[in-house]
Amino acid sequence: MSSRPCVAITPGEPAGIGPELVAGLGETFPEARLVAIADPALMENAGATVTPFEPSADPAPGHLEIMPVPLGAPVTPGVLDPANAAYVLETLRIAVDGCLDNRFQAMVTGPVHKGIINEAGQPFSGHTEFLAERTGAAMPVMMLAADTLRVALATTHLPLRAVPDAITDERLCRILRILHNDLARFYGLSRPHILVTGLNPHAGESGHLGHEEIEVITPALERLRGEGLHLSGPLPADTLFTPRHLADAAAVLAMYHDQGLPVLKHVGFGHAVNITLGLPIIRTSVDHGTALDLAGQGVAEPGSLQAAIREAIRMSRAGG
Amino acid sequence: MSSRPCVAITPGEPAGIGPELVAGLGETFPEARLVAIADPALMENAGATVTPFEPSADPAPGHLEIMPVPLGAPVTPGVLDPANAAYVLETLRIAVDGCLDNRFQAMVTGPVHKGIINEAGQPFSGHTEFLAERTGAAMPVMMLAADTLRVALATTHLPLRAVPDAITDERLCRILRILHNDLARFYGLSRPHILVTGLNPHAGESGHLGHEEIEVITPALERLRGEGLHLSGPLPADTLFTPRHLADAAAVLAMYHDQGLPVLKHVGFGHAVNITLGLPIIRTSVDHGTALDLAGQGVAEPGSLQAAIREAIRMSRAGG
Repeated sequence: MSSRPCVAITPGEPAGIGPELVAGLGETFPEARLVAIADPALMENAGATVTPFEPSADPAPGHLEIMPVPLGAPVTPGVLDPANAAYVLETLRIAVDGCLDNRFQAMVTGPVHKGIINEAGQPFSGHTEFLAERTGAAMPVMMLAADTLRVALATTHLPLRAVPDAITDERLCRILRILHNDLARFYGLSRPHILVTGLNPHAGESGHLGHEEIEVITPALERLRGEGLHLSGPLPADTLFTPRHLADAAAVLAMYHDQGLPVLKHVGFGHAVNITLGLPIIRTSVDHGTALDLAGQGVAEPGSLQAAIREAIRMSRAGG
Repeated sequence: MSSRPCVAITPGEPAGIGPELVAGLGETFPEARLVAIADPALMENAGATVTPFEPSADPAPGHLEIMPVPLGAPVTPGVLDPANAAYVLETLRIAVDGCLDNRFQAMVTGPVHKGIINEAGQPFSGHTEFLAERTGAAMPVMMLAADTLRVALATTHLPLRAVPDAITDERLCRILRILHNDLARFYGLSRPHILVTGLNPHAGESGHLGHEEIEVITPALERLRGEGLHLSGPLPADTLFTPRHLADAAAVLAMYHDQGLPVLKHVGFGHAVNITLGLPIIRTSVDHGTALDLAGQGVAEPGSLQAAIREAIRMSRAGG
């Protein structure tokens, strides 16, 4: 059997840019076997030459292997069709199960369209939740990476109004332990230094701008420091993303989506990677959407998909 | 009388890095007259050669002029003293009044220490509020600028929990009109394009992640578009700060502090400028604090002060 890691790739929404991005990978990753979980005709129409995936084979680098899943309906680029929602979810199931039974060493997901899946009557609130449920993970942690910056989130897709009450001692402790362990495992850091933001502006300014830092965040960080974690914070989010603070940091934990991701996506425009920690499998993802308006034109930028695959390969070598 | 604009500079907290930064300006701005509102001995100890300010004079470029205000107590760098709180506020009053009566064409503020002023029994919640009250401005607008990025805030120093209810139709309309008018006046933009963030992640994702976009923000933007404002939004904050969106934007209006400022301060590390719009005077400020730990050592970085002065001069020429 090949010593190259097998990376499962789900192109995601078939009417979006996912299939053409995957078809265009070519020989970019000779160090791994890339296995698309997709409809073969869809991938061929998108420009790929595909070979059926055979676990014990050792195909020449640059071949896109495929595990076939049939589409529910023919695809017109840019046009969503609820008849393909079940197809999208089935590709995810196959990728997850293949990671769990070690046929695949990692999975990389292309963009899906939540709305059309829900419209088709399939409950689906996002990749992360889907993967957590299928792998039995209690607390998946969303982390985005670009260049040397890594930003994890204490809360993800919540209305802003619901954020303060979601910042609990239990949540912070679970997420920070996962972040600590996974940074050690996948990034070779024995005691990763994590910067933790405050919830409020200026990290509450000693209680003048909110009390969650004093009542929740600081006590949680103190307890975790007692367990050996290397944590700084709670720090004001507006001045945290500067060289003085970031220089020796392994990652930032932001309290919520729009506190941490604008700067990450600014830094990582076109090449940011979304990584789910806290799962029993390795999963990375593009950080962009389906871009229906660009689908089928061959103009979609492959930077984020390539970065996601590169990261998945690296993680599978470091801690797979 | 000199045709050069007179720029009042308040060095701020006398035990912080403000005095040495102002003393170190030297001949950086030959195109303006720089007038420190400060204690003369304090400025001389910080290394300045000062000349008394005489409105009708035309001193050689590079002279720091001074309007003397006596300290309340001797200063030790790095050591706060409530006995100087009244001094700090008096320098601000003189600068504001001088701008109002047109002796000064702009004012630039160094960093103050809110805590010590309050400890001295003087109510003070920040420069912006102080200036608004003294100039009778109903709605000051905080905007930070760095390079070509400008970020204004719909709310500033509020606990995160209080932000959603503070995003009202009235507030958004007043702030956006001020932003529109002041961008036109000071930046020569006839119909400035303003990008407006949503409040919730993904700008609420059509109501799945919060309703403020549908109920408050979108209707306010619609009304303002009817008045001729050029607005885009509400846009997801995490993808807004990328070249595709920013390319033709005059400014971004973020809904709250930590949604807009992390990326601005990341971009503008060491040279960001804080600008107060919506006042009858021109005011810019450094974007850093008093840095008590660095005071008196001659190591503080002057980039932000220089950028604030440069911007004040530019604004006074454009729309003074």
